[in-house]
Amino acid sequence: MKKSSTLVKNAIGREVPTEVNGKAVIPYKGVGQHKPEGRKYGPRISSCVDFPEDGNKLISTLKEALIKSGLRDGMTISTHHHFRNGDVIAIQVFEIAAALGVKNLVWFPSASFECHAPLIKYLEDGTIHHIEGSMNGQLGRFTSEGKMKGVGVLRSHGGRYQAVQDGEVEIDIAVIAAPTADFFGNANGVEGAAACGLLGFALADSQYADKVIVVTDNVVPFPCVPWQIQGNYVDYVVKVEQVGIPSKIVSGTTEITKSPDRLFLAEMTARFCEAAGIVCDGFSFQAGAGGTSLSIGIYFAEMLKAKGMRARFARGGSNKYLVNMLEEELVEYILDGQTFDLDGVRSMRDNPRHVNTSPFTSYNYHGKGNFASMLDVVILGATEVDVNFNANVVTHSDGVLLHGIGGWQNCLFAKCTILPIPLFRDRIPVIRDEVTTICGPGELIDVIVTERGIAINPLRTDLIEKTKNSGLPIKSIQELKAEADKICGIPAKQKFDDIIVAVVKWVDGTVLDVVRKVGP
Amino acid sequence: MKKSSTLVKNAIGREVPTEVNGKAVIPYKGVGQHKPEGRKYGPRISSCVDFPEDGNKLISTLKEALIKSGLRDGMTISTHHHFRNGDVIAIQVFEIAAALGVKNLVWFPSASFECHAPLIKYLEDGTIHHIEGSMNGQLGRFTSEGKMKGVGVLRSHGGRYQAVQDGEVEIDIAVIAAPTADFFGNANGVEGAAACGLLGFALADSQYADKVIVVTDNVVPFPCVPWQIQGNYVDYVVKVEQVGIPSKIVSGTTEITKSPDRLFLAEMTARFCEAAGIVCDGFSFQAGAGGTSLSIGIYFAEMLKAKGMRARFARGGSNKYLVNMLEEELVEYILDGQTFDLDGVRSMRDNPRHVNTSPFTSYNYHGKGNFASMLDVVILGATEVDVNFNANVVTHSDGVLLHGIGGWQNCLFAKCTILPIPLFRDRIPVIRDEVTTICGPGELIDVIVTERGIAINPLRTDLIEKTKNSGLPIKSIQELKAEADKICGIPAKQKFDDIIVAVVKWVDGTVLDVVRKVGP
Repeated sequence: MKKSSTLVKNAIGREVPTEVNGKAVIPYKGVGQHKPEGRKYGPRISSCVDFPEDGNKLISTLKEALIKSGLRDGMTISTHHHFRNGDVIAIQVFEIAAALGVKNLVWFPSASFECHAPLIKYLEDGTIHHIEGSMNGQLGRFTSEGKMKGVGVLRSHGGRYQAVQDGEVEIDIAVIAAPTADFFGNANGVEGAAACGLLGFALADSQYADKVIVVTDNVVPFPCVPWQIQGNYVDYVVKVEQVGIPSKIVSGTTEITKSPDRLFLAEMTARFCEAAGIVCDGFSFQAGAGGTSLSIGIYFAEMLKAKGMRARFARGGSNKYLVNMLEEELVEYILDGQTFDLDGVRSMRDNPRHVNTSPFTSYNYHGKGNFASMLDVVILGATEVDVNFNANVVTHSDGVLLHGIGGWQNCLFAKCTILPIPLFRDRIPVIRDEVTTICGPGELIDVIVTERGIAINPLRTDLIEKTKNSGLPIKSIQELKAEADKICGIPAKQKFDDIIVAVVKWVDGTVLDVVRKVGP
Repeated sequence: MKKSSTLVKNAIGREVPTEVNGKAVIPYKGVGQHKPEGRKYGPRISSCVDFPEDGNKLISTLKEALIKSGLRDGMTISTHHHFRNGDVIAIQVFEIAAALGVKNLVWFPSASFECHAPLIKYLEDGTIHHIEGSMNGQLGRFTSEGKMKGVGVLRSHGGRYQAVQDGEVEIDIAVIAAPTADFFGNANGVEGAAACGLLGFALADSQYADKVIVVTDNVVPFPCVPWQIQGNYVDYVVKVEQVGIPSKIVSGTTEITKSPDRLFLAEMTARFCEAAGIVCDGFSFQAGAGGTSLSIGIYFAEMLKAKGMRARFARGGSNKYLVNMLEEELVEYILDGQTFDLDGVRSMRDNPRHVNTSPFTSYNYHGKGNFASMLDVVILGATEVDVNFNANVVTHSDGVLLHGIGGWQNCLFAKCTILPIPLFRDRIPVIRDEVTTICGPGELIDVIVTERGIAINPLRTDLIEKTKNSGLPIKSIQELKAEADKICGIPAKQKFDDIIVAVVKWVDGTVLDVVRKVGP
């Protein structure tokens, strides 16, 4: 998207384009203000006539499967991120495409990781036109520097499902790396050397893509049970030597923090939830994968034990701490979107109360409700928050793309959204007059917990009332900002180029904000 | 469909209409000859804005839910048959519609039972225009006598999924009776007083209907796990006193036969499978719910035990005999479409190797393959077979509709299809020159087992070769027919009216045959 594009001011005051990568888009209208019209995307009708009667869809190489799938210029190719930094398949797809001379592909991952940095060469040589999905690490810098041919499109996990379901993104070929599969294409993430727990991020891809390729290093006899991905959606199955690098699948961010600062944030957050009456018998919570969030789970567990209560459900990302809570019956169900460690994988495989979910069940805003809005409390991170509680999760204050949105936007619909954040990072204040990139409207963000005090969104008079005599250091967000500014000084406003390198979609498919090329 | 409609001769030689109930239809073109074009049906896009944030979709009465769903003249209303003869909800739906003065509804059940006979009054008074689904018992006679306003449409379970998926049937309101549900609409059949095992026959309805109502007598706190029906597809949840009559849910057809004739058929069938090399380690089979079919399972179990082998999977309808095989590890997996008794329900609830399937996974011909064609052998019933191996399953020789198609057509795609049938019933020969109604093309029917001999379809030279020295009484189908005719005499040809009262669809949505009004 280069300068010529028309910009309009959207409902949250950001200048956004009305066209992205040649397609018309709708500016953000406010929370709950955009009502979708029309019908869900209808994939081409298949017929059993075109598939082997014996169910055997095995193809000898990924290259052959891609050729049979009709790989050609301009196609949209999707992959999922359940292997996290241990993914090896996305790179192979574009190596093959490059070798075949295919150009201008759109890569539509459910997230990208540092392991995907080698794709930069395919962005440079024109194999990949642009990425719709998270651009972080080296891909983020590449994009932020304006080097990507097209405009990046950032969506939440739920927004990605919505975009596929609604036909905003038409996936030509979905490549689904699977720890275990049968020849028919039934696949799961609970068995095999590269076990990653589940495959929910590839659900939309399997349902709606024109061609679906399952890639696995562990072919089992039909039926592969459970079939988290259903073979009835699958065109080809490819057996490879290694579908993912197991040691890199288990994320490094799943240890509880040892940092006293972070532990303090976690404790304050848990105490706030207790004071606000959120921690009660049958409550539900979701905490992210970061060290602070994990630690909050530990505090919740202690509180529940002390009170003789249990939570009805917790939403994963799951890890050994959450699995412990399940096994100690401090939580009745884990509704899991991705497993972060092998305890999570084992639990999901063996415990019927550890349930496989997907962005459809949990996050899709264009469904008949979703799980996210039922959560009593969700604890999330942010890179910046502004005095109106708007928050940023994709860029730092220097404007460089460094995170994806993940389920973050979707989770904001919980009954209480809390962001435990340090008041400053590397002497850069986290609370700003304006965030660099708005990822979440302030009206959905209820509480900011910092090491120097807790700010409650003025809209939440109920929470203010409940916690006023709690002894917790409740302050206004302006007070918190002033404290940070006093210590760090007011940061100079970052300069950006006019060029838009990426857009941030809201959960309903509208454009919430843009990311601009970082200045010289 | 009255006489004026244009008839054309289809690929199997039957005169079929090109329009049914005012909609154009495609005459049958031969097995695998019709290639679908176009795209799957796209239901209206929903938004969380229109659903309660706390997930609570409870509505106090079915009437209110139907009104909120916009019930009005001409709509298509679907129900499922997992409660079999214990269903009480379908009747209530049309009682409410009649009381509201709504007319010309289409009832689209996944099957009907004797308990649905009270719907005749709503067919008479114009509340219901016609039924698309099985018409048997009193409904069958009513239809056969030409009393239904519209033309009945008979589809297989897979054909029903196909029709919904492809948009041939647009369901306005799906009413899904569920033994257990949460307020969000997640529902299952494994818990609750009316436990019926699973809800797979309502899957298409949940996915594609404009409005979806879950009715239950057992509301559990969110999350209802497993969610065989996903709340994200559900508009309203209604709590009623009783959702089904438990004693009538468990079918009476699930005891092994005590009839010596039927036991003999079962034994011959099992011996044929053994002689043909079908019963081997890792094989797969499906037998229906009737007494003969059940008995075949018992013979298979004995053979496997004797050989120290086990089957890889069996397809259900499940019952205590199949569950025994699973528990004795004579079969590794049950892939179940409906549970016929409480042992089936218990096993599905507790045993991860007893797997919930649906017409989508098992039978949909417009998918990327399905399970049915992977079966090594399927054993089915029939009311008539002709000398070309064409078979009938919906009418008797007097032309009266008395069965639905169920999964029968879909199962014909197995690697070997065997029909164990008596040579005559009540002195009426079962093997005919021409069947009254063609439900399955002879090219898909491999073996007819009768008490006086076994006929192998001449197309199956492999089976003929394998069994020629088996000592089994292999005969030609003409020989079998001659024997029956000698005993019973050649029956007079049944006279039919010109009026078409129902059509029989093939698995690809084309019209295979018609059912005509029975003559005076």
